[in-house]
Amino acid sequence: MQTIEKVKDINKKNEVIRSAIRLFNMSGYTGTSVRAIANDAGVNIALISYYFGGKKGLLEYLMSSFFEGYLDEMESAIEQTTHLEPLLCTRLIQIADRMIRYQQRYFYLSRCVHREMTLDTNLIREFMASYLMKEKYLLEMVFKQEESNHVAIPTDILVMQYRDMIIMPFLHPQYIRRIHDLQPHEDYFRKYYLQYIKYWADQLFAQIS
Amino acid sequence: MQTIEKVKDINKKNEVIRSAIRLFNMSGYTGTSVRAIANDAGVNIALISYYFGGKKGLLEYLMSSFFEGYLDEMESAIEQTTHLEPLLCTRLIQIADRMIRYQQRYFYLSRCVHREMTLDTNLIREFMASYLMKEKYLLEMVFKQEESNHVAIPTDILVMQYRDMIIMPFLHPQYIRRIHDLQPHEDYFRKYYLQYIKYWADQLFAQIS
Repeated sequence: MQTIEKVKDINKKNEVIRSAIRLFNMSGYTGTSVRAIANDAGVNIALISYYFGGKKGLLEYLMSSFFEGYLDEMESAIEQTTHLEPLLCTRLIQIADRMIRYQQRYFYLSRCVHREMTLDTNLIREFMASYLMKEKYLLEMVFKQEESNHVAIPTDILVMQYRDMIIMPFLHPQYIRRIHDLQPHEDYFRKYYLQYIKYWADQLFAQIS
Repeated sequence: MQTIEKVKDINKKNEVIRSAIRLFNMSGYTGTSVRAIANDAGVNIALISYYFGGKKGLLEYLMSSFFEGYLDEMESAIEQTTHLEPLLCTRLIQIADRMIRYQQRYFYLSRCVHREMTLDTNLIREFMASYLMKEKYLLEMVFKQEESNHVAIPTDILVMQYRDMIIMPFLHPQYIRRIHDLQPHEDYFRKYYLQYIKYWADQLFAQIS
């Protein structure tokens, strides 16, 4: 009996998460009330307070979950490719591939998190200082693995650009959909888009082994 | 006497615009009430209805103003460079330079508009279908000016990428500020960032005249 109650609770919690992602996507965080989430999920408002400590806590939970998975994926991709792949340009494509797959797997969550990150609140500043600083650190490592880096571009600009290529389709999917008629959550898009990243990386680093 | 009243009205209208940009930037459109804008501007709420037909009308006004100026700037930059500059890679840098200057001039407005454009509402869909379709059309023209385009990348990916480089610092300035310690509204940032765009353009198009 207790187990069935637990399963029910987990289901309810998941319903809340699903509803929050859906509603934050549609109307943004500030445009969504905790009541709307509770109604959409078919749960009592008190349950959201109980599990997440309210709407802000729910957003924090979603963002932490996203970034922890995202950075784990990035670390593991960097570690793997560093051992297996001698060419920096190939490594850059493989890492981008894994990060795009990750964001495709959590498509709506990714969009909602990236969008909230463009706000300038205390919460977002904290997330920047932890997660995005770590991301920068990881990507700098990748670019600095080349002792013989002949590229004239400063590392911070490379990091900025590479990161932007990886997240842009998930921060602004409807631009890609409506203006370019491509579907960023689909597999063909990933392949198509990676060709470009490959071209970029080849141009920059092909001469370096 | 009538003239003084008119000037006062224009000042009030400008106050409303300034307050709206400031508050939309801080809390987003959905997170800002029309009352908060009226209070911040020190005007009566009815005046906002009178001039803009409410909060939605105010956002429409801001977005149209931004995009009309933005596209005018782009058209004029393209026209000028097409006549004066034979090299595509140099043209691309000159156009980017003008577009970055434009967004620096309207720094807070740019951020607020770009951020709202990542939502998926009916209003935004209309703006996409008009302004961003025109932007795509203009940029395609630039890339297609080269009959002898030997680059293996599809034009839509080039457009996506080039556009993204131009707007990213203004969609997400606090990423650049907090993570990379650069100030996207300052002149040195423009010069620094343009070096990268130059590198990108040179790599892609230097061989083409």
